[in-house]
Amino acid sequence: MIILGIDPGTARVGFGLLRKEGSKFFHVAHGCLETPKEMPHADRLSSLHAELGKLIDLHRPMLVGVEKLFFQKNVKTAMSVSEARGVTLLALRDRGVPISEHTPMQVKMAITGYGGADKRQVQEMVRRLFALKEIPKPDDAADALAIAYCAAVSELSV
Amino acid sequence: MIILGIDPGTARVGFGLLRKEGSKFFHVAHGCLETPKEMPHADRLSSLHAELGKLIDLHRPMLVGVEKLFFQKNVKTAMSVSEARGVTLLALRDRGVPISEHTPMQVKMAITGYGGADKRQVQEMVRRLFALKEIPKPDDAADALAIAYCAAVSELSV
Repeated sequence: MIILGIDPGTARVGFGLLRKEGSKFFHVAHGCLETPKEMPHADRLSSLHAELGKLIDLHRPMLVGVEKLFFQKNVKTAMSVSEARGVTLLALRDRGVPISEHTPMQVKMAITGYGGADKRQVQEMVRRLFALKEIPKPDDAADALAIAYCAAVSELSV
Repeated sequence: MIILGIDPGTARVGFGLLRKEGSKFFHVAHGCLETPKEMPHADRLSSLHAELGKLIDLHRPMLVGVEKLFFQKNVKTAMSVSEARGVTLLALRDRGVPISEHTPMQVKMAITGYGGADKRQVQEMVRRLFALKEIPKPDDAADALAIAYCAAVSELSV
């Protein structure tokens, strides 16, 4: 069973793919979908929507975890990321993939057992849980793996 | 030439359609695309995206004005509206319709000549400009007509 995790953004969407066999998790892939800064805003949204569609069609996940923004100090950033989140949810919904949304705190809790864990702790636990030699790069991709794991343990009986 | 104005939202998207002939504007239609509260969030985005697509295919606007949120006190509302804005921009972009984004202040300025005009003044001017018997209802639809007008006078030589 394939689980996809998504860390939404406009410039960069992190993704992480895990395979679940029984109660065990295996790393499949991780990376980022990026759009160039100089591209018009609506074109960036369209590009993210199309690339995400391809990723889903290729891996056919049974479940997708998407990070939920529950607070942002910078409202402008929050609005821009939310627009990207909108087209992300649309791409998933229109393919009938079950969506599981989680706050950063829920993701930290699932990965480290502690909702106040810092970024580095989460990344190190992602490395260990999936037996990776190095911490996945960039940060958005590591976060996406953590989100996939959080969605899996929240939604699927382990 | 048909111009469409859009006032984005999750529960309700206001739309307004104007026809421009020479330097004159005529009211074509206005209304709201609505999604029920009890519908899952991603389904609402998908429904808005699909309905908006139908509206564009039916009226084939040459230009679409979309309200830009440049400040929101309620971050949660701002994020939710931004998600709807994301799928709105996607629907327009994927049909190749030119998009013109405007802040509420720019819209007020275009309609009343005064950026600090209140909602009622804008609505009354919308009624007069397009020779309507009554102020268009609901507010989101009246706003959408104002946005269409703002986009037209900003982008097209009058």
